[in-house]
Amino acid sequence: MHYPEPISKLIDSFMKLPGIGPKTAARLAFHVLAMKEDTVLEFAKALVDVKRHIHYCTICGHITDTDPCYICKDERRDRTMICVVQDPKDVIAMEKMKEYNGLYHVLHGAISPMEGIGPEDIKIAELLARLQDETIQEVILATDPNIEGEATAMYLSRLLKPTGIKITRIAHGLPVGGDLEYADEVTLSKALEGRREL
Amino acid sequence: MHYPEPISKLIDSFMKLPGIGPKTAARLAFHVLAMKEDTVLEFAKALVDVKRHIHYCTICGHITDTDPCYICKDERRDRTMICVVQDPKDVIAMEKMKEYNGLYHVLHGAISPMEGIGPEDIKIAELLARLQDETIQEVILATDPNIEGEATAMYLSRLLKPTGIKITRIAHGLPVGGDLEYADEVTLSKALEGRREL
Ligand SMILES: [Zn+2]
Ligand SMILES: [Zn+2]
Repeated sequence: MHYPEPISKLIDSFMKLPGIGPKTAARLAFHVLAMKEDTVLEFAKALVDVKRHIHYCTICGHITDTDPCYICKDERRDRTMICVVQDPKDVIAMEKMKEYNGLYHVLHGAISPMEGIGPEDIKIAELLARLQDETIQEVILATDPNIEGEATAMYLSRLLKPTGIKITRIAHGLPVGGDLEYADEVTLSKALEGRREL
Repeated sequence: MHYPEPISKLIDSFMKLPGIGPKTAARLAFHVLAMKEDTVLEFAKALVDVKRHIHYCTICGHITDTDPCYICKDERRDRTMICVVQDPKDVIAMEKMKEYNGLYHVLHGAISPMEGIGPEDIKIAELLARLQDETIQEVILATDPNIEGEATAMYLSRLLKPTGIKITRIAHGLPVGGDLEYADEVTLSKALEGRREL
């Protein structure tokens, strides 16, 4: 295709995004060409800012532009509970529900022997370190309701049992095989309510 | 949603692209978060560069990073023919076919009374100016084979008749109601071959 180089480069960049093939990428690039300059500069700045200003909270692992994140910093949150999730998107889903007021811990993954991901590859050591703090009375395991998430919950419940801290698993109100982040608020709320001790 | 501000801004930017709703925009923003910094900086640069370096050729109206564009500049092209299209993407489709060796004129639209687009809203005056040059012997009307494209071709053929220049219309090998830019090379090639004088 005879695209001027700046256009081919933009098409290449769009194609690095998930679910965007060459045709869609070309359509998006031509759309950018027709956009107001300000809008395009804002877009470029937003890309750079996300990389420059978004980090992982050094306490809980959630994405944040401050450190600690707004949840870890919030003195009104219940500091006796930690909800363990796989992904920052799960924190966002939980927060959207507005019924949980404790802290979080983001594992950044789940144990998956199939993909060669072991306990040492996710933020389990960091969780153990946080549990040294005697204020924690309950750990809610809210990993995804699929094979990897269940395996991770199982592993953590065995690992944490000796600490004497109450370990609960979010209830199977979540559609099995699903992804926590796509659960609707009612399902999530029911799942949280029905959590049981492991 | 409790997204840190840089993420909401990036989601907003993605939502300004065609066919991207809030869910897809969030998915793309999180993907950017996980991309290598270099890749994201390249993406941002590509956006800015497209706006800064891509202009419309002052002769033919095609998109270009030089002026005149590489087609208008190319001394090996047949300067006796101008192919009139609606959109820069149509030039790219024609060039991909590799059978046309003349010049182009991009109208940047088509006449559409429904949308209030009249002859003065598209680059018709610029086309007339180019036809003052006596080297032009044929104008090929390659506007889209739909209502607006046909109306524009009809309008131009009447307008240009008095000049004595041969006016042809690309043949209906193109699927009627379609968009020239999506035509495959064979169809386009057949359409060009079967062009008739108006
Ligand atoms: Zn935090
Ligand atoms: Zn040109």
